[in-house]
Amino acid sequence: MSNTPWTLAQRAARMNPSIIREILKVTEQPGILSLAGGLPSPDTFPIEAMREATTKVLADTPREALQYASSEGYGPLREWVAATLNARGQRVTADQVLITTGSQQGLDLVGKVLVDAGAPVAVETPTYLGALQAFAPYEPIFTGVAGDHLGPLPEAISQLRHDAPGCRFMYVLPNFQNPTGRVMPEARRQAVVAAAQGINLPLVEDNPYGDLWFDQEPPPSLSSRWAEGTIYLGSFSKVLAPGLRLGYVVAPPALMPKFLQAKQAADLHTPGFNQRVVHEVIRNGFLDQHIPTIRALYKAQRDAMATALQQHLPAGSEWQAPEGGMFFWVRLPAGFHAMALLKSAVAAGVAYVPGEAFYAHQPDVRTMRLSFVTLTPEQIGHAVALLGGVLRKHQTEELQPDTP
Amino acid sequence: MSNTPWTLAQRAARMNPSIIREILKVTEQPGILSLAGGLPSPDTFPIEAMREATTKVLADTPREALQYASSEGYGPLREWVAATLNARGQRVTADQVLITTGSQQGLDLVGKVLVDAGAPVAVETPTYLGALQAFAPYEPIFTGVAGDHLGPLPEAISQLRHDAPGCRFMYVLPNFQNPTGRVMPEARRQAVVAAAQGINLPLVEDNPYGDLWFDQEPPPSLSSRWAEGTIYLGSFSKVLAPGLRLGYVVAPPALMPKFLQAKQAADLHTPGFNQRVVHEVIRNGFLDQHIPTIRALYKAQRDAMATALQQHLPAGSEWQAPEGGMFFWVRLPAGFHAMALLKSAVAAGVAYVPGEAFYAHQPDVRTMRLSFVTLTPEQIGHAVALLGGVLRKHQTEELQPDTP
Repeated sequence: MSNTPWTLAQRAARMNPSIIREILKVTEQPGILSLAGGLPSPDTFPIEAMREATTKVLADTPREALQYASSEGYGPLREWVAATLNARGQRVTADQVLITTGSQQGLDLVGKVLVDAGAPVAVETPTYLGALQAFAPYEPIFTGVAGDHLGPLPEAISQLRHDAPGCRFMYVLPNFQNPTGRVMPEARRQAVVAAAQGINLPLVEDNPYGDLWFDQEPPPSLSSRWAEGTIYLGSFSKVLAPGLRLGYVVAPPALMPKFLQAKQAADLHTPGFNQRVVHEVIRNGFLDQHIPTIRALYKAQRDAMATALQQHLPAGSEWQAPEGGMFFWVRLPAGFHAMALLKSAVAAGVAYVPGEAFYAHQPDVRTMRLSFVTLTPEQIGHAVALLGGVLRKHQTEELQPDTP
Repeated sequence: MSNTPWTLAQRAARMNPSIIREILKVTEQPGILSLAGGLPSPDTFPIEAMREATTKVLADTPREALQYASSEGYGPLREWVAATLNARGQRVTADQVLITTGSQQGLDLVGKVLVDAGAPVAVETPTYLGALQAFAPYEPIFTGVAGDHLGPLPEAISQLRHDAPGCRFMYVLPNFQNPTGRVMPEARRQAVVAAAQGINLPLVEDNPYGDLWFDQEPPPSLSSRWAEGTIYLGSFSKVLAPGLRLGYVVAPPALMPKFLQAKQAADLHTPGFNQRVVHEVIRNGFLDQHIPTIRALYKAQRDAMATALQQHLPAGSEWQAPEGGMFFWVRLPAGFHAMALLKSAVAAGVAYVPGEAFYAHQPDVRTMRLSFVTLTPEQIGHAVALLGGVLRKHQTEELQPDTP
């Protein structure tokens, strides 16, 4: 910043360009088959319902929809959220629901209200990159909690009492986690909540993908087990459309005033027009019909990717077919480095996100995240074949003796 | 927070409920004539144009409008902003424009990128409450810059070198300031920029009201005089509709990467649907026709309030009829306390915002902010008459000897 009068805040050093957004720019080139972005299939966007709802809102309540509105959010939408969660075993009043400008804003508000510089914050290993980015400007010390294919390990949570005393919360994504796709079964949920309660460690539970199950609904939320110790984040991005930027935070009553004040300071309120349009779309059970169509579409895509990975990935690669959500998490055999290979992959016409982006510390460089929701099954087959070709070529070159 | 596992961040102590939003809740009671809120008249909302634009966007580019989008904002809208500012003497490229979720978010990002705990931040005396709220969670030390009816005093700015060394920036609202309604004339703009440059003090220039002039367009922006030392904030809330939450930040190129990263972390991007709809509304010169209708409406309301104040306020009250914007700033005679009188005013059926909310330090308790854009001229006359009654009653009671 030489030769300018500006001084940056210290926290600005903790802000970094999103590797995913950088990769997305590359993959916008025509001809690239992208498995990188977590972009919902636009085939699932309810365009006709949106058209009807915008017409109705602009006919019935245009002045209210276009005026400043309350920071808490549109009352009927808050009521809808509370009723929907309560039908799944939570005990939430509409007063506890804060409508946010996408659930990313919920993460930012969590950081703003709860994180001091130097305070420990626990995250899964690996965890959602956007959460690391939202919390990082508040300068926490991230502590990675070890896990397996079922979620974080309860004993690793208990260990935080010693490893991260004063930890402000653990951020956890129990359903079809981004990036691993894993879902926590009932027994693990019980054990995780018990371990957190045992050390009085609050939970921040993020659930953007919970509705996207293929065969079986996931067990009830962590929040339904420990309401006063859990902040719950939800989103309309994956079940309606992300371009509306609508999410919500459900917080214990004692925290609500500070979340509301933080929200006021951040953007006054989430666009009232969008809130009313979405409420108009969903108020009469639209999602009960709509979400099953998304599940069917994504399940077919998941199957296509499972088949293609089986066919094209080198022996020794590891993955688990996800039971919902949007992502496969692949671990390549020893000797592979997903970030180093990305350039060759893009040159071959396929993109992915190197898994190292999702680690707070000590990344596993052999991992990669593959999204199956943006391309068609046919394109997925083609993309994974291209990827397999790049990986095999690398393997062959590695095995070649040095040129004499 | 006893009996809960939660620990708040230190900055949460600097968050407070907005007094304006608290007052607005009271004034939502039927029968209250409110001069409190800075709510644009819904008569000015371009409902028909919005209807056509939403229909067109959902017909032509529904998938793009409803999908995740770039954090920078919608390209054609950024181009429009740059072209519009350049036509007024700025030298801005679209690359310098970041679309925000209302200009309140622009203020939050300024705080996030530029303010460290304990760093001085200079503000006008009085200043916009929402800016104090946006910056406060980043824990600056606010320094009030003395001013007169033309704006901040250049010598008070120069004095910041001693009074607030290391000051990160001065926040300034040159056009029809909220709350005072004052506009900085050409000579003062030159002197303010020269004083700021003289001590290498960056400026954050907020311009939500600049288009709302009644007789004469205000002089060119501060940013047009010192581009590399000024961040400029703009908004569509006052010329289209606030419920869309669309604003923008124009930052010097060296600062843009950090603003963009802060924006990504805050809410990924501003709703793409809203950006495309607004661009569709304004792309062909709509505002050239539309804004003059807002000016004419607000000017008539300004005139109504000027007449009513002349008629009903107690002798010794001071105000200046604003040449644009949305607010009168009234200073009552000695012995009045605007906050203490609010309860009686609301009981009499009229509301305002006590001026003390707009001071970083040492509020002038005799001041009040009166908005003239929400009520009709007839209602304004009635509201000011009610207010005059409350003030005269107070004056009479003050003059009564104590009951024996």
